[in-house]
Amino acid sequence: MQLFIGNQNYSSWSLRAWLIFTQFDLEVDIKKLKLFSDEFYQQLSHVTPTAKVPALVDGSITVWDSLAILEYINEAYLDNKAWPNALSERAHARAIAAEMHSGFNDVRNEMPMNCRATRQVKLSLGAQKDIARIDAIWSQQMQLHPNEWLFGQWSIADAMYAPIALRMQTYGIELSTPAQIYQQKVLNSKAVQLWLAQASLETDTVMEDEAGESLVD
Amino acid sequence: MQLFIGNQNYSSWSLRAWLIFTQFDLEVDIKKLKLFSDEFYQQLSHVTPTAKVPALVDGSITVWDSLAILEYINEAYLDNKAWPNALSERAHARAIAAEMHSGFNDVRNEMPMNCRATRQVKLSLGAQKDIARIDAIWSQQMQLHPNEWLFGQWSIADAMYAPIALRMQTYGIELSTPAQIYQQKVLNSKAVQLWLAQASLETDTVMEDEAGESLVD
Repeated sequence: MQLFIGNQNYSSWSLRAWLIFTQFDLEVDIKKLKLFSDEFYQQLSHVTPTAKVPALVDGSITVWDSLAILEYINEAYLDNKAWPNALSERAHARAIAAEMHSGFNDVRNEMPMNCRATRQVKLSLGAQKDIARIDAIWSQQMQLHPNEWLFGQWSIADAMYAPIALRMQTYGIELSTPAQIYQQKVLNSKAVQLWLAQASLETDTVMEDEAGESLVD
Repeated sequence: MQLFIGNQNYSSWSLRAWLIFTQFDLEVDIKKLKLFSDEFYQQLSHVTPTAKVPALVDGSITVWDSLAILEYINEAYLDNKAWPNALSERAHARAIAAEMHSGFNDVRNEMPMNCRATRQVKLSLGAQKDIARIDAIWSQQMQLHPNEWLFGQWSIADAMYAPIALRMQTYGIELSTPAQIYQQKVLNSKAVQLWLAQASLETDTVMEDEAGESLVD
């Protein structure tokens, strides 16, 4: 199995898919490509119709999009244990995961993921609302599962929200206490620590993802 | 079971969730709210944390987001028959569905859904690329399943792409012949015809969704 990802310093979508392999210790050959480079487009053109990462090749099966990859691995290799077991919890987890998958555009635009940076940012009202909503999601789940993952056991919902935990740190966003506890759990997890260690070895700068510079005070 | 939707003339996300109930003849109480009205926010505040449609209430279970609702109904009421049965096809269908769920923003912005309108539009390069990609998805599937749904039997992938078939008609977008065959299949389907008939009875104008006016030649 091959998973194509972008620079670990920048690629938030890649992190989501990478996490499920690392959490569950699944064997996978990671192919890291420098975002937006000639090699990136050349290699991906043989793999996926979208020229985006992450992309997964498993024998004759190709899956692109982080959520579709997570659903695929859950079904094909994890006997569905990457979603909560109860129907009602699974529905809730999928709603939260989907909310992140299609939304929070202001946070994405104004706080691009950049693991090695520390930044200040003046957020728009839209981004502030996004953060309040994310804080509410995390806090609510921490009331149900104190000091645990969002639904107790690690799930695809945690994969979907991992990059935002990193962004919150990079941009020094203040969170409510329960939300902060969850954020720290994510940041201190073995898998995210491994991702950060690998990201710290990268020397490439991707200008398209450094746009946030202009937002620094 | 209650499904909260917005104006059928405008609400593309609502259409996706509504379709699965109609395709499979599932009993549901449709609660239609005028988008962005006081009543809309008031009623939804009791239902979902996001104040967005569609939202589903099934006893004690609440699900928001179109894709999460489709996944829920598929699991809870359809014994998984709303995704292709083969693992490889299901992975492909999920990749395509996810691509629509998080992407094609230029098409969304420049071609807002408006069932009763006929418009011309000058598309940005980004929107033209979006349309070329959608055309490619539809054409490829029509080669595999001529004159059928994207994966032969109707699936959640078809629900995800139904609104764009309507948008393509509203804005007079030219498609390749195989893509056009699929578009016509969607537009002529009983479920979409029912949606359009119900939309045509609406008299509300939602200015937020009429923004496309400025794009008319």
